[in-house]
Amino acid sequence: MQHVVIIGGGFGGLAAARALAKAPVRITLLDRRNHHLFQPLLYQVATAALNPSDIAYPIRSVVAEQDNVRVLLAEAKSIDPTARTVTLDDGLLEYDFLIVATGATHSYFGNNWSAVAPGLKTVEDALEIRRRIFLAYEAAEREADPVAQREWLTFGVVGAGPTGVELAGALGEIGLQTLVHDFRTIDSTDVKVLLFEGTDRVLQAYPPKLGEAAKRSLEKRHVEVRLNTRVVGIDPHGVTIKDATGEHRIGMRTVLWAAGVQASPLAASLGVPRDKAGRVIVEPDLSIPGHPEVFVIGDLALMTSKGAQVPGVAQGALQGGKHVAKQIAAEVRGTPARKPFAYWDKGNMATIGRASAVAATKRVALSGFLAWLMWWAVHIFFLVGFKNRFVVMFSWVSSWLSYKRGARLITGDVGALPRLESIAPDGQPSMPAGAETVAFSESDGSAASPG
Amino acid sequence: MQHVVIIGGGFGGLAAARALAKAPVRITLLDRRNHHLFQPLLYQVATAALNPSDIAYPIRSVVAEQDNVRVLLAEAKSIDPTARTVTLDDGLLEYDFLIVATGATHSYFGNNWSAVAPGLKTVEDALEIRRRIFLAYEAAEREADPVAQREWLTFGVVGAGPTGVELAGALGEIGLQTLVHDFRTIDSTDVKVLLFEGTDRVLQAYPPKLGEAAKRSLEKRHVEVRLNTRVVGIDPHGVTIKDATGEHRIGMRTVLWAAGVQASPLAASLGVPRDKAGRVIVEPDLSIPGHPEVFVIGDLALMTSKGAQVPGVAQGALQGGKHVAKQIAAEVRGTPARKPFAYWDKGNMATIGRASAVAATKRVALSGFLAWLMWWAVHIFFLVGFKNRFVVMFSWVSSWLSYKRGARLITGDVGALPRLESIAPDGQPSMPAGAETVAFSESDGSAASPG
Repeated sequence: MQHVVIIGGGFGGLAAARALAKAPVRITLLDRRNHHLFQPLLYQVATAALNPSDIAYPIRSVVAEQDNVRVLLAEAKSIDPTARTVTLDDGLLEYDFLIVATGATHSYFGNNWSAVAPGLKTVEDALEIRRRIFLAYEAAEREADPVAQREWLTFGVVGAGPTGVELAGALGEIGLQTLVHDFRTIDSTDVKVLLFEGTDRVLQAYPPKLGEAAKRSLEKRHVEVRLNTRVVGIDPHGVTIKDATGEHRIGMRTVLWAAGVQASPLAASLGVPRDKAGRVIVEPDLSIPGHPEVFVIGDLALMTSKGAQVPGVAQGALQGGKHVAKQIAAEVRGTPARKPFAYWDKGNMATIGRASAVAATKRVALSGFLAWLMWWAVHIFFLVGFKNRFVVMFSWVSSWLSYKRGARLITGDVGALPRLESIAPDGQPSMPAGAETVAFSESDGSAASPG
Repeated sequence: MQHVVIIGGGFGGLAAARALAKAPVRITLLDRRNHHLFQPLLYQVATAALNPSDIAYPIRSVVAEQDNVRVLLAEAKSIDPTARTVTLDDGLLEYDFLIVATGATHSYFGNNWSAVAPGLKTVEDALEIRRRIFLAYEAAEREADPVAQREWLTFGVVGAGPTGVELAGALGEIGLQTLVHDFRTIDSTDVKVLLFEGTDRVLQAYPPKLGEAAKRSLEKRHVEVRLNTRVVGIDPHGVTIKDATGEHRIGMRTVLWAAGVQASPLAASLGVPRDKAGRVIVEPDLSIPGHPEVFVIGDLALMTSKGAQVPGVAQGALQGGKHVAKQIAAEVRGTPARKPFAYWDKGNMATIGRASAVAATKRVALSGFLAWLMWWAVHIFFLVGFKNRFVVMFSWVSSWLSYKRGARLITGDVGALPRLESIAPDGQPSMPAGAETVAFSESDGSAASPG
């Protein structure tokens, strides 16, 4: 029986594996994680609305009933298309067909900002971001210097695509709603979120009027949108931006990265042309030039459909996975007839916060509460697994009714919080004697510094 | 207004803070974590039945509506009862009354086994244990050497108190039920759990007939109970035990520690007598000798009530917290009349697994399904927060119906899995040539080694 190796258990890889359930092949599905991640909701884990396991599901469970799949927890190091082998950490896998679906990671455009401005791709990323957000409020509560306190309550988000917009909206709501009764020294509604975007509008991929609606909705959540603004420096105490008026420095202690993505480095070993972001430029049938038995799908591929580029979203990966599964199934059954991939754009949606979202299909552009309900229904529907759907629905309904975020735990290292010399009789933190204005800046400890 | 400082946001500290809600005092509640942990259910996080946030709740939220409490995320380093100050990492807190409730941590009885046999006290501990359990199955699936494979499917638990019994039962059920369809090379029902206990029965604190019932129930779950057995050595590849027949070595890759506990080291700075486990020997009213304004409660104290030692359980801490709050409230209101602490033993319960538990009160001793229902109802009832109760109930009902464990994610470092030289045409892992029996032992990489 022919051996199909699939690298990556994301939307593309899993869709391909499932679509091959009845094909006379044996499948090995590799992933370096044991779980499939429903990435469109990952920002909800980062902002404590959901738990990791609400949106992540063991890959083994997803394919447990499919007898022709073997799941391996392993990382693919390189691919040799000539020898038809995949090199793992510690061994080789031979294949007859290969589907590469390892996705993308953050790109800091050559800057070394990963420690000061984490991005959002994995469960670990989301937990790290959650830790920084809630520690910032703890730090502000302990901070005696008003300038430093202001910086702890200021959050920066770089990039106003869907992830940046979702993170910024949630960051505002955490201060305005979730934490509103929790602190004694600070007022959490003093939260300020700065959303930096290099182009002239938010949500570039959406119709301009939805971008406008999103911007207004963000502003209600204490998000200040800075368009035509490039971030040129980030450190634990602030960012440096460049806009039409020159370079400026803004003090803040928490910065999140939602700007660039870059294809997984595995693509390089295929030895075929790639674009600037490292994506493999695939043939119309999603195979690679010269190797019809090797397919690349999802965010790792620059896929085109009817002359247009397929966006790097879950739908693109899912449909790509199904498409290549069909081509392989046809070939092993002796009826090879490669077809070009045709992407069906079901539309895009992004949420800004409680009861606010934008949704666009070819025919309609919606914003506000109705778009939010639609967003909600679609995301619940596509979550893998019966249980998750209901637990997530319950968490959402409950959070919505109570304004609380249930998963607000800080785990891992707490890091260094601002110095607290003593608690004065009025219960307020007092400044260390003779250090009124330099209390924090003399310390390089910061909750935002890497653990 | 007098200042009450409470160190520790566990059962004792929180109960004291809440019981002081109407007293004319201001309260500072210190904890080095931002969350209260419902520790009786922590083993369910370790065994992937629940999420951390199902059983952990931000301390700020618990007391958000109580205006006289200020919560500080900070670690107390030492206490000076003469100066009436608590030293933090970076400052001092002055108090009029002090309640010390920092609990206990694991004790390895002087051995350096924390890396090879993690214990279960914090959310991080639970996630580390979860990681090891599920990685062990992944490793077994990849392992070609049958001896090493057997070792990956063998789990050791040291100590047959409630935590040890609960972990061992859950470990058996994970292999027998949860993972039963997930693997292709191994059969997860080959799981074997060894529960080591130094005394002559499991659950010493319970009536002997319940210990017997628990043992039988464990055996149905592939748990082999080794009584009168001391563990004298643990390393990443196995344990050395000593029983009536001498010393023996048993190969296994995952060992969990549920044997000893030791009071938090903060107690030492009080300068008062402590027992062998480091617990403070408190006065009948739970204050310390010579300092009626300092109280020690919960697992940090050796509390006695009517001549009998109060067990180190949640009820003891809760009741202790309420008791000292009453003494303080009376004193600040000018009606000091210290009363000795009287513990009301509501009984003990431990669960062994699906539909099996033991419960003992002064009058009744129950085992089996009825005890399990009781265990379930009591634990749901005492969970902090409306939402948690329902989410946990839903998770349990859903897990019970489906035999699945929803929170089965491996996060953090995957570590080194067994070497996998190649996948043979039959889809089975093959051994590296010429290394049939030493494939694993030559590698010191192990999922059980510290991250």
